[in-house]
Amino acid sequence: MAGILHRTLRLRTALSALSSTATARPSHVDLCSPVHLTSSWQFRACCRKLHAGADGPKQSPAAAPERLPFSRVTEEDLNFFRKILQARTITDPDLLESSNVDWLKSVRGSSEVLLRPQTTEEVSQILSYCNNRNLAVNTQGGNTGLVGGSVPVYDEIILSTALMNNILSFDSISGILTCQAGCVLENLSLYLEERDYIMPLDLGAKGSCHIGGNVATNAGGLRLLRYGSLHGTVLGVEVVLADGRVLDCLATLRKDNTGYDLKQLFIGSEGTLGVITAVSVLCPRKPKSVNVVFLGCETFEQLLKTFQLCRGMLGEILSAYEFLDSECMRLLNTHLKLPNPISDCPFYVVIETSGSDPTHDGEKLHNFLEEAMTSSLVTDGTVATEDSKIKALWSMRERVTEALTHDGFTYKYDISLPVERIYQLVTDMREHLGDRAKSVVGYGHVGDGNLHLNITSPAKDPALLAAIEPFVYEWTAGCQGSISAEHGLGLKKRNYIYYSKPSQAVTLMGNIKAMLDPKGILNPYKTLPDNLK
Amino acid sequence: MAGILHRTLRLRTALSALSSTATARPSHVDLCSPVHLTSSWQFRACCRKLHAGADGPKQSPAAAPERLPFSRVTEEDLNFFRKILQARTITDPDLLESSNVDWLKSVRGSSEVLLRPQTTEEVSQILSYCNNRNLAVNTQGGNTGLVGGSVPVYDEIILSTALMNNILSFDSISGILTCQAGCVLENLSLYLEERDYIMPLDLGAKGSCHIGGNVATNAGGLRLLRYGSLHGTVLGVEVVLADGRVLDCLATLRKDNTGYDLKQLFIGSEGTLGVITAVSVLCPRKPKSVNVVFLGCETFEQLLKTFQLCRGMLGEILSAYEFLDSECMRLLNTHLKLPNPISDCPFYVVIETSGSDPTHDGEKLHNFLEEAMTSSLVTDGTVATEDSKIKALWSMRERVTEALTHDGFTYKYDISLPVERIYQLVTDMREHLGDRAKSVVGYGHVGDGNLHLNITSPAKDPALLAAIEPFVYEWTAGCQGSISAEHGLGLKKRNYIYYSKPSQAVTLMGNIKAMLDPKGILNPYKTLPDNLK
Repeated sequence: MAGILHRTLRLRTALSALSSTATARPSHVDLCSPVHLTSSWQFRACCRKLHAGADGPKQSPAAAPERLPFSRVTEEDLNFFRKILQARTITDPDLLESSNVDWLKSVRGSSEVLLRPQTTEEVSQILSYCNNRNLAVNTQGGNTGLVGGSVPVYDEIILSTALMNNILSFDSISGILTCQAGCVLENLSLYLEERDYIMPLDLGAKGSCHIGGNVATNAGGLRLLRYGSLHGTVLGVEVVLADGRVLDCLATLRKDNTGYDLKQLFIGSEGTLGVITAVSVLCPRKPKSVNVVFLGCETFEQLLKTFQLCRGMLGEILSAYEFLDSECMRLLNTHLKLPNPISDCPFYVVIETSGSDPTHDGEKLHNFLEEAMTSSLVTDGTVATEDSKIKALWSMRERVTEALTHDGFTYKYDISLPVERIYQLVTDMREHLGDRAKSVVGYGHVGDGNLHLNITSPAKDPALLAAIEPFVYEWTAGCQGSISAEHGLGLKKRNYIYYSKPSQAVTLMGNIKAMLDPKGILNPYKTLPDNLK
Repeated sequence: MAGILHRTLRLRTALSALSSTATARPSHVDLCSPVHLTSSWQFRACCRKLHAGADGPKQSPAAAPERLPFSRVTEEDLNFFRKILQARTITDPDLLESSNVDWLKSVRGSSEVLLRPQTTEEVSQILSYCNNRNLAVNTQGGNTGLVGGSVPVYDEIILSTALMNNILSFDSISGILTCQAGCVLENLSLYLEERDYIMPLDLGAKGSCHIGGNVATNAGGLRLLRYGSLHGTVLGVEVVLADGRVLDCLATLRKDNTGYDLKQLFIGSEGTLGVITAVSVLCPRKPKSVNVVFLGCETFEQLLKTFQLCRGMLGEILSAYEFLDSECMRLLNTHLKLPNPISDCPFYVVIETSGSDPTHDGEKLHNFLEEAMTSSLVTDGTVATEDSKIKALWSMRERVTEALTHDGFTYKYDISLPVERIYQLVTDMREHLGDRAKSVVGYGHVGDGNLHLNITSPAKDPALLAAIEPFVYEWTAGCQGSISAEHGLGLKKRNYIYYSKPSQAVTLMGNIKAMLDPKGILNPYKTLPDNLK
């Protein structure tokens, strides 16, 4: 341990010593420079035409559509629910308040009923009844979604998975966990860590989000670079369909090619095709050695070169490569009083390694840092091997979202782009908005080509919004990017789907929805565009 | 290099020295011993009842059903195809022969037309025409499938992807490859290796199989343990639907949560939902260091303990853990003249490591082998770090399938089970069949819980088959396993689907098939059970 600390300190000193000379170097040609702009813009215009379908997006695509003709909840309905759930049928407006509003306080529903089932059988009875009665249902996990997908739009019944929080089984040989949908991600992580395993996903909302919600929204997060998406790590799901039928695809096998892989349909369908009641997940072994490095770079090009270097030199132990810009750092300093752990830089990188041999991992990291310093790719940095310091460094990345909520009303964009283009969008947006925005910040998962672009203003500002959209979507479509990398579409982004999906694909999605939920009672107004309804 | 060789030789000697004492040790209690049998059998009977549906499987579930009322190909149809494809419309029976028979020579169709399109547009025109004319179509890649899925059953038109073999793009920053469906897996591997990347999958048939076929059948293979399934590594597909519509889901993004992940539907659907014309795949970096170890174990329990040990000690560099039994070794010796690289043992293991630092990998492997020897888990072994020896050791595992074809008519089973149960099925089957079979062999992917159980006889033997089935399926269902881990269902296994999937799931599969291919022209008689039609 002393050796590790010594090395940490030495690196910290060595890196700091470099920072003064490095800042004086002339900046390199930026990979994302505006020279591509003209041809790219022509391409964007072409793409928009291709993607927007015959009618194109509506005038206010994020606004809620009119209420659909679902039934309204009656006293008779409440009596039915009380018969099944007793006191777990909630109608007290005070208790309903937090379930009607999203975490960002950006959308608000007016549901008058919150149901808290404990079993799959109860969910089945509820849905069978609601389907017969034509009552709309909004399934809710930890209510940590960012696109208005997790709260009702009107008076949909809220079906909470909060009390479905049992771990059903864990096989310590295969690392396969089976649990109910309402288990909180962090609780699962703690459970597994005691057994020498970890969850294959981790995200800032881990203390609140439910694994069922993670699967329903195909959550990405901080470990995707290493362990891949939930489409690969989720082995099974149990789903209650709109009419109450229980679909048991809760396999606990790594391989099963008997027919179509139905579980995939529900991963990322945002509660619109069925209610996920249980999942089985393939969990990786807990790494014996974890290191976190916080580095500063002068340019985004250097940050990308550092990424290429560390992919080569850290190889199989690289488990995260995240970034934030100096605007994020300013918000962390200002609103959360988190001090910058290194000297001021235009860009910051959080690199995590996870491996099975602390000595080998330390050597790989040391060699990488030496090379990164020698080639002047990084200008300052610090290394953490102890839990508390690792947490502190990670919080610089994880708490940006929280810092943003203190900065004002936040317009959030979650964009997938070819990795060499991701910061150009931030630069272009800043130039495009001028002083109309309070802050324009970029952070995210470089390793996955996923940018979180956030724009704040003192209050909700329709003029600012009109300047941001459709600019941001057209820019993204021009690079054949995705307008929602990991947040999903929910209510807010549903009508922008054509920027990232051709109309043939959207039509097919509509067919699947009609097949599985013919009355459209499951999470209405979400995910699919209004013009399909 | 000399150091590595020296170490290799030393380990080889050390391991060999141990073998004589190890064979004399008393055998341990077998995890898979018959003490579980009674309760397990009760459970199996219960499961069969649950899984078999109301009617249960038919009397001869593997036999071809009656020809469905598709149109027959006329001269006018041929003229249409010739107009699109010219000389790439094949009707010469000699040229059609190899496309009508599967690789195992176990099933034979009687198609009179083989179409060889080069572009997605040509496939679209062909399917649009066939759908209108109610002509059935069998899409064929490398024709290396093992369940009769890749050849026509009657006179279906064969649509070959062989001439759709262009690489469309490769991004050396992200490692994302986009190519047409007919690219041969090995060619893609060679292309990528020159660019410092590898394919995320590898299998024995790599010299013939097409990537489109790999994706359509959700091929598993030798690298799944490390890089996961194609549901995670395939980023996009382009598919021509039954009516000729082109569905462009050929994204090259790691993350995209805009709507349902439609590509997943086609991964593993065995050509029954659409024709995959192009794919994009996330490729891992080529490892800088690869080692292969061939070990011998006295019992399957020791083999499993060795697996647990190496998962812990090799950690992130473990890329394969495969096994074969002594019966496989006998067939390799007898039919392919491949000598046993170590002394005779009841079980053999092939372990592969892939990493970024040869020194670190060598140390990890050395430490693991020392521990495995000290604790007497392995009785003999040899290590390879050079390409030619690595290939030679891998061929002991990869060429078992080939050796089996020389042993007689082979009944093949591809089973997923909880890893601690996988060899018990081989033992139980041997006991169950007595001297009715020529050979009963077990090999496969221990790391994935995937057993390949193969039974040979001098010729096709209905009595032997009746003794094997449904015994093997009931046994598997009793452990909640999958009756097809990676081979798919094709023609041969379609009616056994209920052993691994509940009727609700099979019904939903039928609904999806009806939605995407209402006339059922795509690869009829495959994947879905007859009682759905």
